[in-house]
Amino acid sequence: MSSSYGENLRITIFGQSHSPAIGVTMEGIPAGETIDMDALQAFLRRRAPGQNDWSTPRKEGDVPEFLSGLVESRTCGAPLTAIIRNTNTKSADYAPFADTPRPGHADYTAWVKYGGAADSAGGGHFSGRLTAPLCIAGGICKQLLAKEGIEIHCRAVEIGGIADEGELTASIEEKPFPTVSDEAGRRMCAAIAEAKAAGDSLGGIIECCVTGLPAGLGDPMFGGMENRIAAIVFGIPAVKGVEFGAGFEAARMRGSENNDPFRMSGGRVVTESNHAGGILGGITTGMELRFRAAVKPTPSIAKEQQTVALSAKENGTVTVGGRHDPCVVPRAVPCVEAAAAIAVYDAWLNRKKES
Amino acid sequence: MSSSYGENLRITIFGQSHSPAIGVTMEGIPAGETIDMDALQAFLRRRAPGQNDWSTPRKEGDVPEFLSGLVESRTCGAPLTAIIRNTNTKSADYAPFADTPRPGHADYTAWVKYGGAADSAGGGHFSGRLTAPLCIAGGICKQLLAKEGIEIHCRAVEIGGIADEGELTASIEEKPFPTVSDEAGRRMCAAIAEAKAAGDSLGGIIECCVTGLPAGLGDPMFGGMENRIAAIVFGIPAVKGVEFGAGFEAARMRGSENNDPFRMSGGRVVTESNHAGGILGGITTGMELRFRAAVKPTPSIAKEQQTVALSAKENGTVTVGGRHDPCVVPRAVPCVEAAAAIAVYDAWLNRKKES
Amino acid sequence: MSSSYGENLRITIFGQSHSPAIGVTMEGIPAGETIDMDALQAFLRRRAPGQNDWSTPRKEGDVPEFLSGLVESRTCGAPLTAIIRNTNTKSADYAPFADTPRPGHADYTAWVKYGGAADSAGGGHFSGRLTAPLCIAGGICKQLLAKEGIEIHCRAVEIGGIADEGELTASIEEKPFPTVSDEAGRRMCAAIAEAKAAGDSLGGIIECCVTGLPAGLGDPMFGGMENRIAAIVFGIPAVKGVEFGAGFEAARMRGSENNDPFRMSGGRVVTESNHAGGILGGITTGMELRFRAAVKPTPSIAKEQQTVALSAKENGTVTVGGRHDPCVVPRAVPCVEAAAAIAVYDAWLNRKKES
Amino acid sequence: MSSSYGENLRITIFGQSHSPAIGVTMEGIPAGETIDMDALQAFLRRRAPGQNDWSTPRKEGDVPEFLSGLVESRTCGAPLTAIIRNTNTKSADYAPFADTPRPGHADYTAWVKYGGAADSAGGGHFSGRLTAPLCIAGGICKQLLAKEGIEIHCRAVEIGGIADEGELTASIEEKPFPTVSDEAGRRMCAAIAEAKAAGDSLGGIIECCVTGLPAGLGDPMFGGMENRIAAIVFGIPAVKGVEFGAGFEAARMRGSENNDPFRMSGGRVVTESNHAGGILGGITTGMELRFRAAVKPTPSIAKEQQTVALSAKENGTVTVGGRHDPCVVPRAVPCVEAAAAIAVYDAWLNRKKES
Repeated sequence: MSSSYGENLRITIFGQSHSPAIGVTMEGIPAGETIDMDALQAFLRRRAPGQNDWSTPRKEGDVPEFLSGLVESRTCGAPLTAIIRNTNTKSADYAPFADTPRPGHADYTAWVKYGGAADSAGGGHFSGRLTAPLCIAGGICKQLLAKEGIEIHCRAVEIGGIADEGELTASIEEKPFPTVSDEAGRRMCAAIAEAKAAGDSLGGIIECCVTGLPAGLGDPMFGGMENRIAAIVFGIPAVKGVEFGAGFEAARMRGSENNDPFRMSGGRVVTESNHAGGILGGITTGMELRFRAAVKPTPSIAKEQQTVALSAKENGTVTVGGRHDPCVVPRAVPCVEAAAAIAVYDAWLNRKKES
Repeated sequence: MSSSYGENLRITIFGQSHSPAIGVTMEGIPAGETIDMDALQAFLRRRAPGQNDWSTPRKEGDVPEFLSGLVESRTCGAPLTAIIRNTNTKSADYAPFADTPRPGHADYTAWVKYGGAADSAGGGHFSGRLTAPLCIAGGICKQLLAKEGIEIHCRAVEIGGIADEGELTASIEEKPFPTVSDEAGRRMCAAIAEAKAAGDSLGGIIECCVTGLPAGLGDPMFGGMENRIAAIVFGIPAVKGVEFGAGFEAARMRGSENNDPFRMSGGRVVTESNHAGGILGGITTGMELRFRAAVKPTPSIAKEQQTVALSAKENGTVTVGGRHDPCVVPRAVPCVEAAAAIAVYDAWLNRKKES
Repeated sequence: MSSSYGENLRITIFGQSHSPAIGVTMEGIPAGETIDMDALQAFLRRRAPGQNDWSTPRKEGDVPEFLSGLVESRTCGAPLTAIIRNTNTKSADYAPFADTPRPGHADYTAWVKYGGAADSAGGGHFSGRLTAPLCIAGGICKQLLAKEGIEIHCRAVEIGGIADEGELTASIEEKPFPTVSDEAGRRMCAAIAEAKAAGDSLGGIIECCVTGLPAGLGDPMFGGMENRIAAIVFGIPAVKGVEFGAGFEAARMRGSENNDPFRMSGGRVVTESNHAGGILGGITTGMELRFRAAVKPTPSIAKEQQTVALSAKENGTVTVGGRHDPCVVPRAVPCVEAAAAIAVYDAWLNRKKES
Repeated sequence: MSSSYGENLRITIFGQSHSPAIGVTMEGIPAGETIDMDALQAFLRRRAPGQNDWSTPRKEGDVPEFLSGLVESRTCGAPLTAIIRNTNTKSADYAPFADTPRPGHADYTAWVKYGGAADSAGGGHFSGRLTAPLCIAGGICKQLLAKEGIEIHCRAVEIGGIADEGELTASIEEKPFPTVSDEAGRRMCAAIAEAKAAGDSLGGIIECCVTGLPAGLGDPMFGGMENRIAAIVFGIPAVKGVEFGAGFEAARMRGSENNDPFRMSGGRVVTESNHAGGILGGITTGMELRFRAAVKPTPSIAKEQQTVALSAKENGTVTVGGRHDPCVVPRAVPCVEAAAAIAVYDAWLNRKKES
């Protein structure tokens, strides 16, 4: 099922950009877990639009309403469903795109797949807006993992070709812009502003790091941590590549360089380097799990673009008005965190049944 | 389930490197399809070891025996199971690695996960040998897709930092070495031979191209073609990155560069460029579907490496003897083809139920 | 996942008896199908409480709100979610049952499974109230099947030992009480009234008949129509048995009696009798698909009952006040119809991908 | 997938009656479990044909060969695959049934579903022979459950209208005929012999009892123990009804009779009666889990029967020669045990991940 993910904790995301509401159902969440609602809201705020220069001015509270699964903020074992009402929607803005599909968007493929029945308003079910319920589920998983000592952090490691510098640590979450180096962050913001002024957009790369993971999570073959994480992270719109540890760079190394030597350290097994990104044979080594996701530049740009008129079967042009982020990377940072949290927590539950 | 993949066509892979047999079960394969056994065997031969300088001398026929699902080479609707007997196994070679895990292999993580019960011989269920049943299933899917006009081809687009040149076409399958440029292929072979002589190994990048795909395959969110393909390709040992279309390079483009303009061509909708790799919103555009997979250098190298003695909890060393490819990329080429064929055929069946 | 069902059309039910809302998500529903909202509401009314003597006086509109998946009552291909707000809830009524579990209810088993975190109010996620979202999904499937000429009807074939008479036909839906024989219906109502007056309750048997089914639906082994239908019908609270065709009676026949002879009739293959209930080898024969579900008497009765005090680990008693149906069979009739519709439609989609 | 079952332990059954082999793959079986091969073989012998008067004379060793998943009879965490070679097959016996389908068999429905590609020999994938791999998987699950103190026993509680007497206990396994009362068993055998002599066949009812189960196994709604067990037991050919506890009889009781009062006994919660069959809200109560399965009379009878000639679209007759059990109930007894063991073990693993 395309809008569901997970074996042990199964999330199902529903809603369209302009439907009455969007939401998520989580099945398999253990009973008796108290959700810190303030922490969850703070997490969602990191993804919310309208906060600054680099994101769309569409302002939404994105305050989830919990319909089921909780009794006074504590999970009761039943499926947990939370929704966010869609307000401030301007469907009329999108009417033309049903016939003149926006380049880089799903307008055309949705039209092929669903025909005239597709909900083209605001991208429908393909909209980036659907990452809000992903973040509700992921924010809850982050809390559950934190109780086990497992933390997940992400940063914008590159935007518009500008690289961040320094090591990713937990302190990233307090930063207004998700880079380790404030200087790099400033340069990225300037590049975004410049692209916006030019009616254009930028992409970038997000790095994710999971700490506190025990060795032994994940499974062989298609159940590997790489498979599990990629299968959800590619569900975030605009992600076009995922690599683990040294990733594509490993393809250029020799075995003697890329292999991470095992060593004893304080009574436990570690590796001296971590080109594997904390995963061997699909299973965690106990080192930090690290991966990177490539995010394409926002397809919605102010410039006029070439497209086709589907009904007339003619060439034409389209100009995308409306409200759009000139670079989705900063807001995609918590989404990647959320996706990673869901994948890791699902693997965590899987391991429990084996022990 | 870690060794199964697919929603509509479900494959389950079983076996360990040194178990009596390895094999695959395919559920959901339509009835009445005739399998060309010679073509299948020719496909499997592309993965088989022992054929040349750059692969392990372990010689195996890799001739599948079909136990079920066929009546005189025609599918009958029941699950299709094929096995390959393991012969020429030298388990004793691997005995030491249960306690002194090989860097870059799954020996350590298997030990953590399964304890002393792990089958460490030859890498057990984590062995690259398990790609043989993947290729049986994928070879069959390739045949079924070819009947629909859908073709899948792969090449070694980079090995040891040496890039292939030219455009990937169907003629790649007739080449003894999977590069478009014979000159690039010769240089890659020389680099592999050099690395082998140095007791070392090389990695590389495989490019995959699917042609003849209709627009409209795949689903939104977690059912996107990227998610589906990544979820199986990361099941091939040594793959550490997957990118679609422009992939990580897209992260450095502007929207105006990366967006693929739509145009009419001969009455159908095409895109002028294909940075999207033939996928928008997870769904095929009708352009070529393109992706690349990063393959790390073979972890088994002749050089002595640092490791730990698990029982003694001490540092130590390990020397990996035995038979190993100094570069798995050439043999991984048909494996990526097989994985892509399975993912695409599964999505194909999914679309049938919607139409 | 316990609250999900289906392979091709997947429904997920959420909510507790006293949570803010209950609801259902349907994934895999084809795009472009118009839902007749009046017909759906009429179907839901058949399950709704508070309409007559034999059901609980809890009055609820049970009007679904569609949050996603529809554009002006037409499916758009995205997951369809509908909710019903819970109003008129009296949680305090249930407070004691968390510690003194009601015999025949899930209070005790929920306490064992979820501990103190269980939502015991009104039976939580175990409540019969959760059949309302089942009926939303089933009512939609009934409409989709009707377009294919497939109809599903149920009746109360037995209540309190009183048997209905005559053949089940489509006209059953217009009856205020779901029996073919009005006389039998009157006797059943009288028996229910008598049981209620005695502070007691009655059970019964529901018969379901699916007409217009083509031959060839369903799959071998665990994918048989029997497996598919039983797997969902046992999800209706109080169902304790399911039998197909002659069912348990077949166990007392001889092969020569039970076998249904094949005959040609009007150019198509029929069977002269239908002891198989329209299913052979798990697959539909094209004859009417018939099954029966046993419904236990409502566990909530006015009489004082023996139970335990869980915290004190002592014997005690419990008296169940509140509002309860003295016999749930009449209201369970549309629930069994809904469950059958979902199972049959899921099998229908499955067959499409094979053809 | 029709030939797979289970969420946490997933079994996939493959093979046709006359294919080279039949077999089963078990995914998710924990590592480090030693299988008692003698006990497993003894269990399989209970299902094996050719042992006595009431079963087919087709003699097969039914000795499984383990292809993967074991190292010296101990599970290693990888998928476990076992096969049984098909020998002593007489396909020619079945050739006519492809066109003149046998009443009560899947010949006709397989022809509709798979067309001419169906493997009609011996019933193909629909054959009762496929219960042999079910028993391999179930026999292993029985052993794993026994280590937890959970035992599963079945008996023929009724054959040809003759009822067994007495309470089902573990000693049933040592009996040559699976009844508690030897006298009842003798009468059943005589009835079977009489039916056989008349060219006819008998059906019956199997009772299953699971002891030693903790309270708290199973899940609400579609994950209930009833749903889980019915979903696998209906996969045994000839099963047409499944009821739990009082089952259909409960439909005739009053709530005050059917409700099982809770009582403290030796510090734990028990119920005085067990009409619920040990299941409330889909979850085990800790009492014995009891269910009954109705088995129809063997459709293969010696008498000439009416059927159709599919190609000629004409009425005709068919006479079923070959080797057939006049009553499959005795051999189905271990199959129901196996099915129950798989369902219970799967639920057992599910609970581990929640605790």
